[in-house]
Amino acid sequence: VTAEESYADSFDVRVEEVTSIAAQVDEELAARLRFLLEIEKLKGIIRRSLALGGKRYENTAEHSWHLAMFALLLAPHSNEPVDVERVMKMLLVHDIVEIDAGDTYIYDAAALETKAEREEEAASRIFALLPGDEGVELRALWDEYERQDTADARFGHAVDRLQPLLLNFTSNGESWATHHVVMEQVREVNGRMATGSAELWEVARRVLDSAEDRGWLLS
Amino acid sequence: VTAEESYADSFDVRVEEVTSIAAQVDEELAARLRFLLEIEKLKGIIRRSLALGGKRYENTAEHSWHLAMFALLLAPHSNEPVDVERVMKMLLVHDIVEIDAGDTYIYDAAALETKAEREEEAASRIFALLPGDEGVELRALWDEYERQDTADARFGHAVDRLQPLLLNFTSNGESWATHHVVMEQVREVNGRMATGSAELWEVARRVLDSAEDRGWLLS
Repeated sequence: VTAEESYADSFDVRVEEVTSIAAQVDEELAARLRFLLEIEKLKGIIRRSLALGGKRYENTAEHSWHLAMFALLLAPHSNEPVDVERVMKMLLVHDIVEIDAGDTYIYDAAALETKAEREEEAASRIFALLPGDEGVELRALWDEYERQDTADARFGHAVDRLQPLLLNFTSNGESWATHHVVMEQVREVNGRMATGSAELWEVARRVLDSAEDRGWLLS
Repeated sequence: VTAEESYADSFDVRVEEVTSIAAQVDEELAARLRFLLEIEKLKGIIRRSLALGGKRYENTAEHSWHLAMFALLLAPHSNEPVDVERVMKMLLVHDIVEIDAGDTYIYDAAALETKAEREEEAASRIFALLPGDEGVELRALWDEYERQDTADARFGHAVDRLQPLLLNFTSNGESWATHHVVMEQVREVNGRMATGSAELWEVARRVLDSAEDRGWLLS
């Protein structure tokens, strides 16, 4: 086995041990800790955005934290009134399915075709680790985000599009170049940001123009 | 300059450019984006807990995400009733000062002596990047966490102690060994968890006993 595999195996064994120990105190607490250690794995899911100005790729756990902060502070720029705390919770859990389904690159058309099915299966497994009501509540938030049919979900999606765009700009467009992404795709994929926040899209549009002027985004 | 320095320099220049572009749309939006890109740096602050069962050290951004999830799900185990969303916000921002002050290891007595002063200065600079009310609100949450004089702050602190302890256990105690930490210190530092949640401390105590039985924590 590779070092990576043995780390993973050992981690899962330890998680089972923590769960057993906790179950001696309280069964529901044990289930919650089991879930909280399962989602540790999001720290190992690597996205396509470069973090820290280009030092390394971002992982999904830190991305989720960043989005919650974006939602908290940018809510005044939502097109419609939103429940900020609810949007934050939605964003903290919206990528949890990537533990099983992986990160699907927004510019990868083939992967996008199977994304819904893969993520649906993952959601069924992962949220079911939690005691009844809690699993149902978080799953409902995840479904709502996927459906994009509420103001909270639309605003959440807007910040989920803005953040990677800003990371790409602050790393001199390196990820766009590496992945052969061109301006037209970026405008098309990110233009939907305007559904949640016209103001954020206006800033994003200008940032993209600047990236194009520098040759970081080709037409 | 090293590669690391030039990345950092370039990042700060790009952040100023995004801020200028956004200011053409809205001054307050520009200030909020400036802050949100400043806190990107938390992804580069490395803690002493090993993530993912031992693969690498955890950073403060992903730690903050994990704590918010801990608070969301473990609130039923708080000694006193808490405002869950408020605790989540508190935990999402509680380590922001580490951008300037760095992560202070909980078992490093010398560093702990200067921690309050270093973090106070950092809080003054970083929260002041935000428009008036928002900066004041987040700073107040940060101060409340530091003071530990409310139920929300005490419960937040309990999960901030539990999470690294579980990461240390799930990475076979490697971080305790590397940093020459012994059982008595761990019990003393983490026992305060009981002030926020007797139940979480009961689980933690049993997990520590198991770590001691395996020789991962020496007396």
